[in-house]
Formats: sequence, structure tokens, C-alpha cells
Amino acid sequence: MSTDATGIPTRRTYSYLGPAGTFTEAALGQVPEARDQIWRPVRNVAEALTDVVEGRSDAAMIAIENSIDGGVSTAQDALATMPGLRIVGEYLVPVNFVLVARPGVRLEDVSLIAAHPVAYAQCLQWLSAHLPEHAHLPAASNVASAVGIVDGVSDADAAISPPGILEHYDLELLASGIGDNANAVTRFVLVARTVAPPAPTGADKTSLIAELPDDHPGALLELLEQFSTRGINLSLIESRPIGDALGRYRFVIDADGHIQDERMADALLGLRRFSPKVIFLGSYPRADRAIVHYPERYSDDVFVEARDWLRGLISGEPEA
Amino acid sequence: MSTDATGIPTRRTYSYLGPAGTFTEAALGQVPEARDQIWRPVRNVAEALTDVVEGRSDAAMIAIENSIDGGVSTAQDALATMPGLRIVGEYLVPVNFVLVARPGVRLEDVSLIAAHPVAYAQCLQWLSAHLPEHAHLPAASNVASAVGIVDGVSDADAAISPPGILEHYDLELLASGIGDNANAVTRFVLVARTVAPPAPTGADKTSLIAELPDDHPGALLELLEQFSTRGINLSLIESRPIGDALGRYRFVIDADGHIQDERMADALLGLRRFSPKVIFLGSYPRADRAIVHYPERYSDDVFVEARDWLRGLISGEPEA
Amino acid sequence: MSTDATGIPTRRTYSYLGPAGTFTEAALGQVPEARDQIWRPVRNVAEALTDVVEGRSDAAMIAIENSIDGGVSTAQDALATMPGLRIVGEYLVPVNFVLVARPGVRLEDVSLIAAHPVAYAQCLQWLSAHLPEHAHLPAASNVASAVGIVDGVSDADAAISPPGILEHYDLELLASGIGDNANAVTRFVLVARTVAPPAPTGADKTSLIAELPDDHPGALLELLEQFSTRGINLSLIESRPIGDALGRYRFVIDADGHIQDERMADALLGLRRFSPKVIFLGSYPRADRAIVHYPERYSDDVFVEARDWLRGLISGEPEA
Amino acid sequence: MSTDATGIPTRRTYSYLGPAGTFTEAALGQVPEARDQIWRPVRNVAEALTDVVEGRSDAAMIAIENSIDGGVSTAQDALATMPGLRIVGEYLVPVNFVLVARPGVRLEDVSLIAAHPVAYAQCLQWLSAHLPEHAHLPAASNVASAVGIVDGVSDADAAISPPGILEHYDLELLASGIGDNANAVTRFVLVARTVAPPAPTGADKTSLIAELPDDHPGALLELLEQFSTRGINLSLIESRPIGDALGRYRFVIDADGHIQDERMADALLGLRRFSPKVIFLGSYPRADRAIVHYPERYSDDVFVEARDWLRGLISGEPEA
Repeated sequence: MSTDATGIPTRRTYSYLGPAGTFTEAALGQVPEARDQIWRPVRNVAEALTDVVEGRSDAAMIAIENSIDGGVSTAQDALATMPGLRIVGEYLVPVNFVLVARPGVRLEDVSLIAAHPVAYAQCLQWLSAHLPEHAHLPAASNVASAVGIVDGVSDADAAISPPGILEHYDLELLASGIGDNANAVTRFVLVARTVAPPAPTGADKTSLIAELPDDHPGALLELLEQFSTRGINLSLIESRPIGDALGRYRFVIDADGHIQDERMADALLGLRRFSPKVIFLGSYPRADRAIVHYPERYSDDVFVEARDWLRGLISGEPEA
Repeated sequence: MSTDATGIPTRRTYSYLGPAGTFTEAALGQVPEARDQIWRPVRNVAEALTDVVEGRSDAAMIAIENSIDGGVSTAQDALATMPGLRIVGEYLVPVNFVLVARPGVRLEDVSLIAAHPVAYAQCLQWLSAHLPEHAHLPAASNVASAVGIVDGVSDADAAISPPGILEHYDLELLASGIGDNANAVTRFVLVARTVAPPAPTGADKTSLIAELPDDHPGALLELLEQFSTRGINLSLIESRPIGDALGRYRFVIDADGHIQDERMADALLGLRRFSPKVIFLGSYPRADRAIVHYPERYSDDVFVEARDWLRGLISGEPEA
Repeated sequence: MSTDATGIPTRRTYSYLGPAGTFTEAALGQVPEARDQIWRPVRNVAEALTDVVEGRSDAAMIAIENSIDGGVSTAQDALATMPGLRIVGEYLVPVNFVLVARPGVRLEDVSLIAAHPVAYAQCLQWLSAHLPEHAHLPAASNVASAVGIVDGVSDADAAISPPGILEHYDLELLASGIGDNANAVTRFVLVARTVAPPAPTGADKTSLIAELPDDHPGALLELLEQFSTRGINLSLIESRPIGDALGRYRFVIDADGHIQDERMADALLGLRRFSPKVIFLGSYPRADRAIVHYPERYSDDVFVEARDWLRGLISGEPEA
Repeated sequence: MSTDATGIPTRRTYSYLGPAGTFTEAALGQVPEARDQIWRPVRNVAEALTDVVEGRSDAAMIAIENSIDGGVSTAQDALATMPGLRIVGEYLVPVNFVLVARPGVRLEDVSLIAAHPVAYAQCLQWLSAHLPEHAHLPAASNVASAVGIVDGVSDADAAISPPGILEHYDLELLASGIGDNANAVTRFVLVARTVAPPAPTGADKTSLIAELPDDHPGALLELLEQFSTRGINLSLIESRPIGDALGRYRFVIDADGHIQDERMADALLGLRRFSPKVIFLGSYPRADRAIVHYPERYSDDVFVEARDWLRGLISGEPEA
């Protein structure tokens, strides 16, 4: 896809949750390599990732977590079950919402509100305070919620959307800044087919999904110890049901550091030996470029020195 | 509400996610005390719980977890933030789905599918296999998805609903058994205002929500140890973002046992001392009535004996 | 023993390892209550403790640990196996040694050295450097080693003794300050019959001996966690064989704090529930009077508050 | 030493605690390679080990632990401080004691008892029961105790010795089988200069000494976890004071397995990274030839498979 049959470079294709105007599109706008390439709007996360797996796209931008509602379950579950994918980048998009309606509608008239479920969850405090008896009509995206009102195909009286919606559609602003947290952000990841991880930058993150060996009290403890005993901080730990029975979980984990850091490589080895199933999703630069700090005793040279020591013991060299 | 002004008993009121025909209504049907009482359909979880807090209802039935999609985030978050509530019972409802459409529509015509997001997530494998290019139109409930089609207010070509929907509406069955797991169940809890927990039955569950003291590698480990060091198994552990910043979580926990079990009381004491915020949601009989097993060393009499021993040491009695 | 038949106070009796001049006597000299009382020299630790158990003495002073050679095994084992005793005080004695001989003997003549084994161990570096081919003739006390030379009943050429020996006997000083550590101290404890512990001072120590439940990899870990999870530091942890088979140990522990501290009481409860045998030896003021510091989260009021909270949960009070 | 200047093999030399008749000599008798070689009796453990370090001997047999009295402190401390040594074999000697005296002496006449301190500790129960008011005169070995009586240079009335003493000296048997445990054994190790460990046999033991990084509550926990998290059982764990201050310890450890076992190599790496000082004393066949059992998840092939997996991740190969 990146070259044609004669070796001439062709444009790359990026799948994202459309239509134009979504937060996902804003995330894709942060990717320098995606400029002037083909942007392919799709209708759900599974479709975006399937595009990548089947070669229709070079990469897909998907929402993976937001600061109010937590991990995006469908994205996590898709990554857990679709092989051949790897996260290669992370992007943060500030999230803010407005309540819009057809011209003439007043706030006190609003009873049914169209909103993408994740957006809805992020405005729940505002809604409970100002429209306590509303009902929720889930929408497929933050743009679709408003489009349905404009088109008249939706029963909803009002819609929750990003502020930019007002530039594209003839809608009345009923309230702005209705998100429960002014600092809310959504975290997106760019997903490609399996490749070698980009080189460490010192400000990296490693994503993975692991299952527990069996349902005994200490199994999750033991999983977490694989990281804590190597001085590795986890920025995300979420449980997701495996789906075969109540009480069986896999864990979605973001760990500070890169697979080529000795301590992370050692933790991954420990995890692999412990867990019946580990999916490595990738090591990639953090969106915030924050350098990862860790205790000196877990630095690369400590690991290298210990291996040299062990080698000397086995060969029978006198200790220094 | 249970008695009128003259002290004469009145009927109790139960709030649930309506309309008639939802899985939530089926769960309420399992409550013997709710028979012949007032069933109050509401439009969202927050409304159901607010009914209880404000005295409009005696209890609310809400979905809390399902075997495919995991914890119901909005319910967990509502319980984490609304004080004065307590879980008093647990109920399991088998979950099965059909794909329905207006008469005359064929499966190959289906492009846009109306479905409650939780139901949608439970049918994703089937949909990816049979309708890979579909789009999802989220619906407010498993009944609303189908009603929108019948009424013609929804753009959707088909809807995901419980099988019983065919008894009430003129709809065509396109496919049945489309849930990804034939054994799927949803777990519901009955929530009342704060009361003393019902007496232990030996087959009990304790639900709670706890925050971690701060974001260091070992904090979650320490939380889990409060249970594992008292021989208590956890049947549910889910993280939910607190919402003030990325990377800050509270944990939703179901633990085997009752607050009046010595080992559970001791674990709760440890948890309270450790965590900046613990919300006790209740101890109540398990839906499956499975007796809780635990190592003999954590039985009540071991705790009682140790306290007697300590008392003797402090008073200076010679050891036996 | 402290009163005679007519209720008139009588003098108290203290047993100690004699004869006069031993470090143990110096330790007893630090006890204000022992001044002008009866000091009873005995020949071994078991005899001193038996005096207490059988009522011949009110208390016994015994060496329990020194900074070079570690715990005094015979004392630890006696405390582990003789019931009815309790440590009520701790005393530190600086330890220094000289090498002495009969007048006329020169250092280069010395081949066989009489020394109490503990003293011998504390001078081993000096001896290896200055008298590498010496042999050791163990003596029953630090005074007996020198007395044997004076009396001529011992074959030894020289003896290791405390410096004060020169004031009582006609001996030649061959070398002084021969201890391997100039700051060496020996720790002594005063042992009485079982009584209520003295009141907490804020600078207390708790001594105990515990067996492990069985020989599995994690048992010692679990024992140590009883303390670490309550913020309690251990100043001493020594293993001693139980004696019935190789590989079976009991652990001698000194923990910072007092049995009436909530965190220590809770740790003792946990230990009692876990261990097949726990011997509480006493809570008593530290010899160095150093105030015990611990994380604020383990303070008494945190424990009290958690118990109040638990009581409220069980009674059904709404949470504050 | 094993060859002369012309390359002709010479006899090997073995140092041991003499004189002839000690338990140490019995241990050396178990070594097939030592048959018909030079046996060099010495007077203390330090002398035996110095012989090896300085090339006067090829190996030294030393007592390291007994089932009643625990680790032999002087031997442990010597191994901790003398570099260039390695344990190459382990031997067990059953330990039994008799009480002997000059002809004509009766048990009721005995007041002062000569005994090596380790032997004395193993007979303490018998002595407390039969001779409660005895005093102890420490002897340099289990043979020297009796020789002193025969020679008349010792004040002692009786001596504790191995039963074989009666074959060599004109002594009266006052009591036999006076050891507190009929199954008592002493464990000896054969120590050579640093060499490559002998090949794994499946029934191996690894001995080491480690210091803790600093005096905080969790440091010993963390040391033990290096083994428990790799499924390695410890058959010996003893604390020994480092000697520079009260409360500072090193730990003497025997772990089941061989340095060439993957799980042991990994534990040693973890230990080296954690501890400021680790002394590897050797991997060698266990005296009892008992095969080491461990959970399947810690077998060599699990480690090898995990490394292959990690290598694939880093190179970007699609996961199988």
C-alpha cells in the first residue's frame, strides 16, 4: 500500500471513526505522517481495525480511554481478540461538550437527549442538575447525535456534541461547557499491523493485555508484582470480562517504559511465564512526552552487571 | 412509604429500567416481596436510584454486571457517588438476543442496527461475521431499539432485542440466538436506602468501592492484600476512573462473605485504615446460593480465640 | 518474696551470671530497683531463669544479643521453652576486651587462649592477625577464663577478659582493645515471672518467638507481613532450630512498639491466627529510650475510627 | 598441590577440625576422593579455611549446621568474610553423646562438665533434668573435653563426648544417649577454592549469603520474594549480625536447586540487583540425594519459551 507495483511511493490510508468533526478526526490531525494522506471514515472500531488487518488501511486511530468514563470497552475487547495489531502512537484530545437543539427549542422543553454513550457519561452531573428527568437516546457518534436532529430523523429534543458542530450545522446553543470536568481529555492510539516497536525515547509506554492463570485470591496480586518488583509504575489497569463466565477477567495494562528497557523486558518475561495468555500491544512514545522516572536500582546497567556476575559464577571465576 | 399517616401498611414501590419487557423487569419478577407491589418504570439508572434516595421508591432494581460486557459503568459510578444506598439482594437473568426488523426486510438489507450498547457488545462476534459493514445506532433500552423501528421514528433497518419482543410487536425475526455466549447472564442488584445488612446465610457477598491512597506502584497490591491475607476471594474487581484526572481510579469489588464474618469485618477495618475512601455497598445473599468456602484458619472461632489470648497477655495472666 | 509473712517488705533477689566482674553484673548495676537488694550469682542462663520460675529470685538478668555475635542462642532457646516468664526491661553494656597472662608471659609465647565463646568470637579478627595459629580453650565466663590462669588449673597461655579484671587479679596486660569493633555492646534483658506489661512510654519494644505453620516457601514471608502491613519495624529477627528436624525453625523477633499500641495488638492477633505457636515475651521500654516512629496511618486513632465506622455499617446507620 | 613440578600427580590434602575422633573426621570419612589422601587436623574453622585459601590444603571439611543448635556461627561468619572459597559437597553425620568421667566418679559427684559448646547445647534438656546445678566448662572439641579429664589438666568432673571416645581412653561411662534428640545430625560442607560448580544432578542445593539494602520493614520480605516468586524453597535461612551495629544483619541461605537451573539463575540475578552484597557459596549435590520438586511453571523450558517470545516481540514478528 505504501508503494505501487513499480516501487513508486503511494499515499498511506488511515481509518478513523467518522464522519468529519469527531474527536477521533481531531486526534488523527495530530499525526504528522498522516498529513496529505488518505483518511478513511468508518462506522465502528471493529471496522477500523479490520481495515488494518486486511490491508485496506495502513493504520487506524481509535479512542482507548477517557478521563471521565475510563477505558473504551469495545476498543479494548477488539485489541484483545484481533491478532496481528500493534499500537505505534498515542494522542490526547481535550474534550468539551455543548448542548444543541433545533432553532426555537428552549432548555425547559428538552426531555429526550441524543448523545454518544461516552459523551453522555461525561455530562451526567450537569444533566442531573439541570434536566433531572431527561431520557437518553444513544447516538453512534458525537456528530451523529446532532445530525439526527437537523435531519429530523431523530426523536431527540437536543443533542450533546463537540463545540465545533455549530460551525457546520444550523443549531441553537442551549448550554456550553456541560462536561463534568473542564480538564477532560480522551486518549487515542494509532494502531498498525505488527511491526518492531519504535526505538525507546525515555518517555515511553507499553500496553498489554493479560489473563490470570486461574481464579484464586492471589492471582491478580501476582500479576501486579511482576511490575512492582521491577520498579515499573502502571498508569492504567482495567479488568474486562473474558466473556465465557461471570468472574473471569483479562486485564488491560499500560506500564511506564519500553520493551527494550531491561526492567520491562524482565517484567514481560515474568508475565509470560505466569499468565496463560499475554498480548503485547506495543511500546510507543507517550503523548505527554513525560520522561519515565524509576529507582536507580532498576536501571539497565544494574541488569547488565548482574548478568556478568552470574556468568562469572557459573564459569568459576573468583569473585572480584 | 410502607405505611400511611394512620400507620396502615401501604404498598411498596420498586423502580426499574422500563418499559415492560426489559431484562430489568425480569429481574424484578424474581423478588417475592415485590409481587403485587407498585413497579415504577424509569428511564435511566440515576433516576431509579434518585427515586430511592428521595423516597419515591422503596427500592430500585439495576443491572450491575454482565458476563460479556463486564460491569455496568453508569450503575457503578452512580453507586460510588450517591450516598445513602445499600444493596440488599442479587438476581441473575439469562440473556439472549434476537435480530428483528419490520416485515419484509431481509438480512442482506440490514445496514444500520439499533441496539442498547450493552446488548450490542454482546452480539459483536455474530455481527462481525454476518454483517461486517453494519453501523450501530445506540438505543436507550433493549425494548426501545425495536419500538423505534415499529414506530418508524428510527432510521435503523433492524434491532437487537430480547426474544419476548415478538409477542408484543409485529416484527420479523431475522436471526435468533445471536448473543456471543449461549450462557450469558446479567447480574442485577436490588438497592434500598441504608439499612442494617440482612443476617448472614453462609452464602453471602459483600460489595464495596474503594479508592487508592495515591498513585504509587504498590497501592493496588496493598488493597488486594487486605482480602488475600484474610483468605477472602474476590469475585469482581473492576477499576473505574475517579474522573478528576487520567490515571486515578476507584475499584469496584465483590468479596465472598458477609460483614458479620470475622475475617470480612477485619478486612473492612484494614481497608478503611488504608483507603482514603471506602463505600460499603452491602452484604447480601448470593443469587446462586453457593456456600462460601474459606481456609479453616480464617474461621470466626480463630479470631475469637486470638482476641482472648491478647486480652490475657495484656492483663498479665500466665499463658495456658 | 517481696513481703514476709507479716507483710513487711523484704529485699528482692536478682539472679545473674557470676562471678562478680562479668558484663552481666554491670548490666544489673544499671537497674535502679536492684540497688541494695540481693544479687545471686549463678552458673548458667537456665539456672538464672529457673530461679525465677521456682521463686528463688524475683528477676534474672541475662545476655540476649551482642552486636558482633548476634543472638545468644542458649538464652533465646531457654525463653522459647520455659513458660511463665516475661521480659520487663532492657539494658546495654559497652563491651571491650583485653588479653592477659601470668606475669612474665610474652605475646609471642601465646598458643592456647582461654575465652568465653562469645568473647572469643568478638576478638577473632585481632587474633587471626596477631596470633594466627592460636587454639581456643573455651571458658565458662569472661572472668573464669582469667581465674583459671591465675589458679594454674588451666592450660591456657593467655585469657580474654574485660579490662576490669586487672583490678582484681595479678595479671600481665598483653594487649588491650582487642575487640573487633570499638562500639560493640551487649544487650541484656531483665526477666520476671508473667506480669502485666509496664505502661507504654512511646519508646518501647515487644519481644516474641513464633513458629511457622509449615515448611512452605511463603510461610516466613507471611509472618513478616503481619508486621510490615501494620507499619511495624523489626529490630531483630533470628531463626533458631526447633530441634526436632533439620529445616524446622522458630523465629525470635523484637518489634518496635508496645502491645497496647493498636497496631501492635493487631499484629499480634494476626500472628496468633497464623502461627501454630506464639510466645509473647513482653513489651518494655527500650534501653536507648528512642521514640518509635511510624507512619501516621497506623496511629491509634486511625484504628479507633475504623472500628467506629464498622460498627455503624453493621447497625445500618447512614454513612457520614 | 595436586601435581608436583614434573607433573606427576601428588596426594591431595584435606583440613578438618581435629584431633582424630571428632565428628568432623567422620564426615571426611564419607568423601570417596579423600581416601588415602593427606588428612590435616587443625584447631579451628578459620585455620581450616585459611589452609585452603593459602594453598596448604585442597579442601576443608567444616561443620555448618546441626539439627539442635542451628547454624554454626563461626563457620557462617568465616564463609561470609573470606573470599575465594566455594562449597563443593555436603555430608550428614548422626550425632550422639555420652557423659564420661575418670574411673570411680559417680553421676551424683558431677558438678563441672566439660563440653564443646555445640555439644553442650544439644544435651541441655538431659543436663537440666539430671544435673540441674551443674556448671559448664567449654572445651575446644568433642574430644578435647574428655582428653582434659584423662590428662588431669581440666577441673571438670565429667565430659560430654561421642560414644567412640571409650575405645581410645580409659574412661567410665556415666550415661549414654544424653542428646536431646535421638535423630540429631550435624551437617558438614566440603570447601574448596573457587571453581565452576559441579554439574546439576536434580538433587542440588545452592548456598549463599546476602545483605539487606537498608534497615526498612520490607527489605527481608523483598529478599525472600526473590525465591518465592520463582518457586524456590529455602531449606535454611539464618540471620547473622554484620557486626558494625546492633540491628544490621546478613542472611545465610540454602535454596533448593542449582545455579544452572533457569529459576535459580533468575533468582540470583534478582538477588544481585537487590542486595548490596551477595556471596555465592556454591551449588552442589545434597547429602540426602532428594530430588528437588518445584511447580511446573518454573521449569527450564518455560523460561526458554518466554525468552523466545520476547525476542519475537522486539523483532516485530507476528505472534503465533
